[in-house]
Amino acid sequence: MSRYWSAVVHGLTPYVPGEQPKLANLVKLNTNENPYGPSPKVIEAVRAEAADTLRLYPDPNSDRLRAGIAAYHGVTPEQVFVGNGSDEVLAHAFMALLKHERAILFPDITYSFYPVYCGLYEIGHRAVPLTESFEIRVDDYLTPNGGIIFPNPNAPTGRLLALGEIERLLAGNPDSVVVIDEAYIDFGGDSAVGLVARYPQLLVTRTLSKSHALAGLRVGYAIGQPHLVEALNRVKDSFNSYPLDRFAQAGALASIEDRAYFESICAKVVRTRTRLVEEMEALGFEVLPSGANFIFARHPAQDGAALAAALRDRSIIVRHFRNPARIAPFLRVTVGTDAQCDALVAALKALC
Amino acid sequence: MSRYWSAVVHGLTPYVPGEQPKLANLVKLNTNENPYGPSPKVIEAVRAEAADTLRLYPDPNSDRLRAGIAAYHGVTPEQVFVGNGSDEVLAHAFMALLKHERAILFPDITYSFYPVYCGLYEIGHRAVPLTESFEIRVDDYLTPNGGIIFPNPNAPTGRLLALGEIERLLAGNPDSVVVIDEAYIDFGGDSAVGLVARYPQLLVTRTLSKSHALAGLRVGYAIGQPHLVEALNRVKDSFNSYPLDRFAQAGALASIEDRAYFESICAKVVRTRTRLVEEMEALGFEVLPSGANFIFARHPAQDGAALAAALRDRSIIVRHFRNPARIAPFLRVTVGTDAQCDALVAALKALC
Repeated sequence: MSRYWSAVVHGLTPYVPGEQPKLANLVKLNTNENPYGPSPKVIEAVRAEAADTLRLYPDPNSDRLRAGIAAYHGVTPEQVFVGNGSDEVLAHAFMALLKHERAILFPDITYSFYPVYCGLYEIGHRAVPLTESFEIRVDDYLTPNGGIIFPNPNAPTGRLLALGEIERLLAGNPDSVVVIDEAYIDFGGDSAVGLVARYPQLLVTRTLSKSHALAGLRVGYAIGQPHLVEALNRVKDSFNSYPLDRFAQAGALASIEDRAYFESICAKVVRTRTRLVEEMEALGFEVLPSGANFIFARHPAQDGAALAAALRDRSIIVRHFRNPARIAPFLRVTVGTDAQCDALVAALKALC
Repeated sequence: MSRYWSAVVHGLTPYVPGEQPKLANLVKLNTNENPYGPSPKVIEAVRAEAADTLRLYPDPNSDRLRAGIAAYHGVTPEQVFVGNGSDEVLAHAFMALLKHERAILFPDITYSFYPVYCGLYEIGHRAVPLTESFEIRVDDYLTPNGGIIFPNPNAPTGRLLALGEIERLLAGNPDSVVVIDEAYIDFGGDSAVGLVARYPQLLVTRTLSKSHALAGLRVGYAIGQPHLVEALNRVKDSFNSYPLDRFAQAGALASIEDRAYFESICAKVVRTRTRLVEEMEALGFEVLPSGANFIFARHPAQDGAALAAALRDRSIIVRHFRNPARIAPFLRVTVGTDAQCDALVAALKALC
């Protein structure tokens, strides 16, 4: 604490990201990184940026990248906003589109950054409980609100909400912005991007960190109608004109354009996920249905924190959340390579 | 305008960065980029990051980079905060350290992003007029305030404030945060970093965009006592945990460590600046004393906007500000290579 801090800083409870240990030889299944590297075309594109031109500012508007994303999704560049990771995109969305008189709504179990943004921007919020089976019940969101946000599939549960239910949510909320955070959608869900044309209040966010295997490059984006994108641009241009460096713009574009590659690595992850779920169920775990590159699982006879610690002793890192209490028995396990998942299952066999 | 926008978005007047034209063969002297490329060691370091490891998140705390910056300045890593360009560092400083009951103070002619941050974070501010010779008068800042910020050298004037005057400002303002924005200090000024140990309210910000020739990499930082850095970290970790990608962290570290290189390119720019000032004065221009990699100059018989437009017709881009009226007669000219400056002088000879 310091008398020089602004009032809001005193009250902040910052987000705590998953650990990035600096040790080698770990089986790192804690931050939902892709076990496969990015496209060779990405490597080629970023290598070309390692040049004298680094002395020049990057394009402040990322025009080529936005055009590439627009082409991929079949929208116009004016419907695309890019940022320094989807966390930055989300931060701007909270300030630009979710800060209103009424409290916003999000699930009680969800991406734990949402309440942090609310703290930063002094946005009222109400956590809506998931059902007993950890599902989002759309009817709970058909009530006056200042905005709605949730990931689909949800984090850290991995559960998908069907597109028909999302459309019902939108139809019932014409007056407030609905943000669907599709960080994990490429691992098997139906995207809401196709609904953007019909729903002026819908913003869909994406990241290249997971399905594109580019967590180290920091690129995320949002798709929405131009009036929503304009609000994000107004905040961006009042915060930092040049959020994406030359590597990020070039690498992200190359990745978006190499559709066959990233679809193939996503398919590999999905195949491994199916096998991992079967093997963990065989060990007695209850595993929630996952549409993501991670699974959320609990063992009826094991304490979640103790199990995570025991795995760590065996150089396997998974993520465990102490709060809320309802998810404390669970482990969130990133789907790695087959070999990494084999190592995990072998360790769990010894422990359970 | 849209009914979905938050109240603050309606009122924003975003910053407008200098143009980044996509044409070739321009003499681009409008955004204070370094005419020389970055260190070969930077190129080597970023090339090494073009690898499979892009699938992994970068270090959220940029530990190695902060250690390198700390070693360079002779401070501890706990006194160093890094961000996605100094614009992001400044944005966090406005929210974390300059948002108080009282209005903050900055010069009436200064970096035009400051009032934009005030708009974004709803911070009251008062613009303090520079003297007739465009200097900061410290006595004007010895009055109750919520914080003080200015660049040294100031932008877009290039004028330096002596370190003794900065110390007098600090001694007279023990209760409010003073941010000295040293974006251009490597081109000939005395840094205030040495005062950080004695003044708990002092934050000094820097960028690698100018003196390190890395505008395309987006890295800036701040030096202050740990309690100020902690406030910045609390905001950063409530906004985006991973603001610097793998290229930015590795490239910036390599640049900071190659002190001989960046000092040599700064010295070259300073030599060219001396010559450019002489030649423009010979053409009748009044040129303000500059401690930066740009000069601010007016011709008694020429209109600033018309002159900028005439240069543009000759493929030479400089920056012109319409507001405030007092600086409308001036051109801000980045110091380029000797050849670029020769081209500018030749064009001005034909025009003036």
